[in-house]
Amino acid sequence: MEKIRIGIVGYGNVGKGAAMAVNAAPDMELIAIFTRRDPGSLRTDEFTDKIVHINKAAEMKDEIDVMLLCGGSATDLAEQGPQFAAMFNTVDSYDKHAKIPEYMASVNAVAKNTTAVISTGWDPGLFSIMRLISEAVLPSGKSYTFWGKGVSQGHSDAIRRIKGVKHAVQYTIPAEDAVSAARSGAAPELTARQKHLRDCYVAVEAGTDKAEIEKTIKTMPDYFADYDTTVTFVEADELFKNHNKMPHGGVVVRSGQTSDNKQLMEFSLKLESNPEFTGSIMTACARAAYRLSKEGQYGVKTVFDIPLNYFSEKNRDLLIKEML
Amino acid sequence: MEKIRIGIVGYGNVGKGAAMAVNAAPDMELIAIFTRRDPGSLRTDEFTDKIVHINKAAEMKDEIDVMLLCGGSATDLAEQGPQFAAMFNTVDSYDKHAKIPEYMASVNAVAKNTTAVISTGWDPGLFSIMRLISEAVLPSGKSYTFWGKGVSQGHSDAIRRIKGVKHAVQYTIPAEDAVSAARSGAAPELTARQKHLRDCYVAVEAGTDKAEIEKTIKTMPDYFADYDTTVTFVEADELFKNHNKMPHGGVVVRSGQTSDNKQLMEFSLKLESNPEFTGSIMTACARAAYRLSKEGQYGVKTVFDIPLNYFSEKNRDLLIKEML
Repeated sequence: MEKIRIGIVGYGNVGKGAAMAVNAAPDMELIAIFTRRDPGSLRTDEFTDKIVHINKAAEMKDEIDVMLLCGGSATDLAEQGPQFAAMFNTVDSYDKHAKIPEYMASVNAVAKNTTAVISTGWDPGLFSIMRLISEAVLPSGKSYTFWGKGVSQGHSDAIRRIKGVKHAVQYTIPAEDAVSAARSGAAPELTARQKHLRDCYVAVEAGTDKAEIEKTIKTMPDYFADYDTTVTFVEADELFKNHNKMPHGGVVVRSGQTSDNKQLMEFSLKLESNPEFTGSIMTACARAAYRLSKEGQYGVKTVFDIPLNYFSEKNRDLLIKEML
Repeated sequence: MEKIRIGIVGYGNVGKGAAMAVNAAPDMELIAIFTRRDPGSLRTDEFTDKIVHINKAAEMKDEIDVMLLCGGSATDLAEQGPQFAAMFNTVDSYDKHAKIPEYMASVNAVAKNTTAVISTGWDPGLFSIMRLISEAVLPSGKSYTFWGKGVSQGHSDAIRRIKGVKHAVQYTIPAEDAVSAARSGAAPELTARQKHLRDCYVAVEAGTDKAEIEKTIKTMPDYFADYDTTVTFVEADELFKNHNKMPHGGVVVRSGQTSDNKQLMEFSLKLESNPEFTGSIMTACARAAYRLSKEGQYGVKTVFDIPLNYFSEKNRDLLIKEML
């Protein structure tokens, strides 16, 4: 069997998760991991000999079937998405929901002879799949998405940017009352404040006014002002020791009805490692990108556009026999 | 907008659920409901004027875009599937798992210029989708499917065939311990007996030996012998009064891991009406059958073969904007 040759761009937490998933996939071969850092500076792990400077990527165009773009949405992907999709089949986890149409257009414009599967992962990604299916089969109803309990990188970063903050970790927590209300079948309207709590652990520089920091966090527009937020100040070493995991999860609830009958659909995740799970999903999507490109189905694709058997290593007959 | 013209074959519980769902879909028009019974004999409801004898179906070939086959798998579909797929685009809920490949081949052989979406519903159907996706993204792990609490038609029928039984309703109940074990991340092997309980309510003819009936049920191969089964004898009128609902549900659990991290995925349903939900799913699949056939994608399709946006009434741009 010819293996799908995979490259990874970005060797952060998601890139590491993807490298493990690719390495474990019997139908794939990890060719190279591209980084902007000095490859020699990265700590030794089992993939050390695959690490290459990102400037070499273009030269390896013919050696790689699919490139997994594991950078962050905030800055990396907006640039790397179109740059790499012009040369390679790609998979990314672009997750700035409001900007997806714009990002999509920028990638589609260059993916003339390549296939680019964008916005994979679990949200967007698996949760999107659930939102679509559940509305399609229960058109009369209401959908709810809850995230957590888990670390939100974006919210943690927002706190870290405050002057005087040394380090911070923010947990997004779904409000139990709201989840119960969503499941009740009463189809309530729920505000941002009702749905999620924000729990922050913050270490500050010596001599910083904690009350002032707390106020700055709690009133920060977009990130915290619309939520019930708790702030706990801890020492930096305690923060690194007790809050260094990256768990996450969430649930999509569809509360629908047919005639006068309540029908409830629910999809949930409980993840001990968010980046490893995201890397695993991207790896399954690499298979789809490869197959679509082999069929000449070029341009941008989302999880809504791809038959599900493209994600599996198993062939159609086996899937039908074992899983249908 | 040109509406998708829908026919329904079989006016039992699922057919009624499908008729309601089609009627509520803004992009569909219900043309006719075909029955083997005397159309005049069916009780009056809002769809009465659509009810036509099944012998007229072939004549209406050009008036119907997709035919929803709402008969049972046990006898109806094995015959009706190939018969109708030769003339119409079809959707069915064929659910005899072990025989799907054989059924599929028989339908595929005749669906030369039609599209036949087979084995839809929630299992096979939505649960199959979950089994496939969850294994594809978490290849290291174990999947579990639990059904219930809900009425199993097949098991209820099996009891009703026992001599002396007037009426019977069987509830399949997932064992709480087993569901907890599946969620624990310990990835246990679970036997049929450990996973589900079978709870039977039975009304018998006067003078029947109840102990004998109970023994016959509990030792019935395939259906009950491998399970912990409880049998409660009740009067027929109580049975009709208290056990006339058709709730169902279930859960698919994927207990996986990446490196040493546990990753849990779960999809669950709580349905007050199983047949109405199945009819709704078939209606969403009718949309897919119609679109595939318009594209010339003929032959048998399963939920594994169809991009998810084919199931939604909304267009791709809107889906990406609202749900990705």
